[in-house]
Amino acid sequence: MDYAKESLRLHKEWKGKIEVVSKVPVKTKEDLSLAYTPGVAQPCLEIQKDVNLSYDLTRRHNLCLVVTDGTAVLGLGDIGPEAGMPVMEGKCVLFKSFGDVDAFPLCIKSKDVDEIVNTIYLISGSFGGVNLEDISAPRCFEIEKKLKEKCDIPIFHDDQHGTAVITLAGLINALKVVGKKKEDVNIVVSGAGAAAISISRLLLEYGFHNLVLCDRKGIIYEGRKDGMNPIKEEMALETNRGKKTGSLADALVGADIFIGVSAPGVVSTEMVRTMAKDAIIFACANPTPEIFPDDAKAGGAKIVATGRSDYPNQINNVLAFPGIFRGTFDVRASDINEEMKFAAAHALADLISEEELSPEYIIPRAFDPRVGKAVAAAVAEAARRTGVARI
Amino acid sequence: MDYAKESLRLHKEWKGKIEVVSKVPVKTKEDLSLAYTPGVAQPCLEIQKDVNLSYDLTRRHNLCLVVTDGTAVLGLGDIGPEAGMPVMEGKCVLFKSFGDVDAFPLCIKSKDVDEIVNTIYLISGSFGGVNLEDISAPRCFEIEKKLKEKCDIPIFHDDQHGTAVITLAGLINALKVVGKKKEDVNIVVSGAGAAAISISRLLLEYGFHNLVLCDRKGIIYEGRKDGMNPIKEEMALETNRGKKTGSLADALVGADIFIGVSAPGVVSTEMVRTMAKDAIIFACANPTPEIFPDDAKAGGAKIVATGRSDYPNQINNVLAFPGIFRGTFDVRASDINEEMKFAAAHALADLISEEELSPEYIIPRAFDPRVGKAVAAAVAEAARRTGVARI
Repeated sequence: MDYAKESLRLHKEWKGKIEVVSKVPVKTKEDLSLAYTPGVAQPCLEIQKDVNLSYDLTRRHNLCLVVTDGTAVLGLGDIGPEAGMPVMEGKCVLFKSFGDVDAFPLCIKSKDVDEIVNTIYLISGSFGGVNLEDISAPRCFEIEKKLKEKCDIPIFHDDQHGTAVITLAGLINALKVVGKKKEDVNIVVSGAGAAAISISRLLLEYGFHNLVLCDRKGIIYEGRKDGMNPIKEEMALETNRGKKTGSLADALVGADIFIGVSAPGVVSTEMVRTMAKDAIIFACANPTPEIFPDDAKAGGAKIVATGRSDYPNQINNVLAFPGIFRGTFDVRASDINEEMKFAAAHALADLISEEELSPEYIIPRAFDPRVGKAVAAAVAEAARRTGVARI
Repeated sequence: MDYAKESLRLHKEWKGKIEVVSKVPVKTKEDLSLAYTPGVAQPCLEIQKDVNLSYDLTRRHNLCLVVTDGTAVLGLGDIGPEAGMPVMEGKCVLFKSFGDVDAFPLCIKSKDVDEIVNTIYLISGSFGGVNLEDISAPRCFEIEKKLKEKCDIPIFHDDQHGTAVITLAGLINALKVVGKKKEDVNIVVSGAGAAAISISRLLLEYGFHNLVLCDRKGIIYEGRKDGMNPIKEEMALETNRGKKTGSLADALVGADIFIGVSAPGVVSTEMVRTMAKDAIIFACANPTPEIFPDDAKAGGAKIVATGRSDYPNQINNVLAFPGIFRGTFDVRASDINEEMKFAAAHALADLISEEELSPEYIIPRAFDPRVGKAVAAAVAEAARRTGVARI
């Protein structure tokens, strides 16, 4: 199927993929007096007395803002706020379909970090949480950080953390298959965008030690001059213990794991051949991966995952964000912290039994009906355990 | 029924009166590839080429923002942004139920005019129109004016214009009943808030000549020193041709029409007795009117309207805003102008035939199924006629 053509045709037919509907009847004067004036004054007054009651008396408890500035939409780049909206609406569809989370899409006509932060903050009293979406790096890191400081509701940038959670879930199972330990393996991450940075950070916090980050210019190391920015400087200090320099090909020599969230075709069969035995390849550039599964296998890779649904082991964000927000909202968590992300990754990994586990099946499938609930339950439990649950 | 108690109970049960749902199926990989990646890239690219296509390819064409700062919620005053949300959700329910308009509620945590304007502007690319709600006067006038200058989508403050449209509709029919002409009658408007100012302005533009505005301090006149503000100064120049001074009671002597959007009980039977023959009384303070219908009748009033559903002739905003936005969205109007408001008022008035018309029936009932469509058709036609329709 020509997805582009058919999707455009359907979008014209759909005229929007979401709808705001009423949950209450207004057929009679009585209905009107209860859902609206004069009755509605009472819930208003209750919230005025205790703002926390806004979670009980309005939709806030289940409502997630999906917001972009349109600067990094899919692989399309900076296409503008309005042009990002079909993706945002699609995200809202997935939130509702996979997590029963009401999500509402907004695009912001600004590229200024502080203006974006302030806009989201000013409307944050209307929502239970915020999902940042398709905002370019390194601005996305600053926006997320400032919002977390300013708002009292959870802030989550799915392009970073959702991807990181599923990658971690996949790695947990991949290591079981090849019989290696997280403390021992060498990881190479290709990319320096939101996903690459966030994956690297989550893996290091989880207990992986040896990780080298590569961008277009090659290995990122302390003191590199070319093509650096504050986030890369920071990552240079946190990664690359061996103080390696050189190209991506140099980095891959002897590596156990390659994680690509970068560009099509940057890894060759030859490069895989230089990696350690039973190499694990997550080639997630979409739609064209860093290396296709057959080519990676030809180089000796044991396990290959991609972002595509037509190969085994799809790294698909829909596995994580609906359940993460479901669990977060279920306990009205004030934050989505690292422990909650680890819990989500373990819940995903644990859905595959030891008997089922194989090089072709390390990650649950997108439509596995157990996923949303398992992730939600684990995330809620972790929120309680770490003291961020509010109910 | 104790509406306050029952409404609170229901709000706890409802946990939100609106829901964001998906209009599209996501049951298979194929569905996902069309509603989301990779297919969704194509509609994004189309909007990037022509931003107007955002109306065809996303929900924007039918989506109204309902937004408040919580400063003038119902008659409760400044209760805070979150506390206003039960009203905003209720408004969205009415938009959907009476006009099939998708409406989404937001509260803004700011009282600063420019900050509110900028926040709404920055997210305006996500919507087809904006309905301002429960924002205190005189800030609401400035916010509306600045937004109209800044945004390319229609901006409507229902507390002003919706109320004004229905008041005009009622007056058109009331004058038919008493056989008076708009050019001849003397009108007294009580109140100096959003509704009073907007009603006065719309009536003057419609062709009423003789109108006196009264606030708590009495008649507003050029040169008055006490309790004035820029809007009242402006209104002092546009109203009160006879340069009257004195109290509300003074203003009412010989008046044909009283329109109250002010405070409970400010008009007495005695005061009505001093008015002209066949006086028309719109006592819209809610829930306790400026004068109850029986008391007004006792003073000789011929026609009485209120904001209440338990008396004849209810001035209820639900008669106007759903149809006004329906008609506006149907032709993708860039503005809701005076002609469109006049058209809405006439459409409402014309729903009552000359045979049906009586002192007890000058305004259609809230649940009259003809209302929404009649208003929408008239508004769309007026938009086309005045050149603001975009499709």
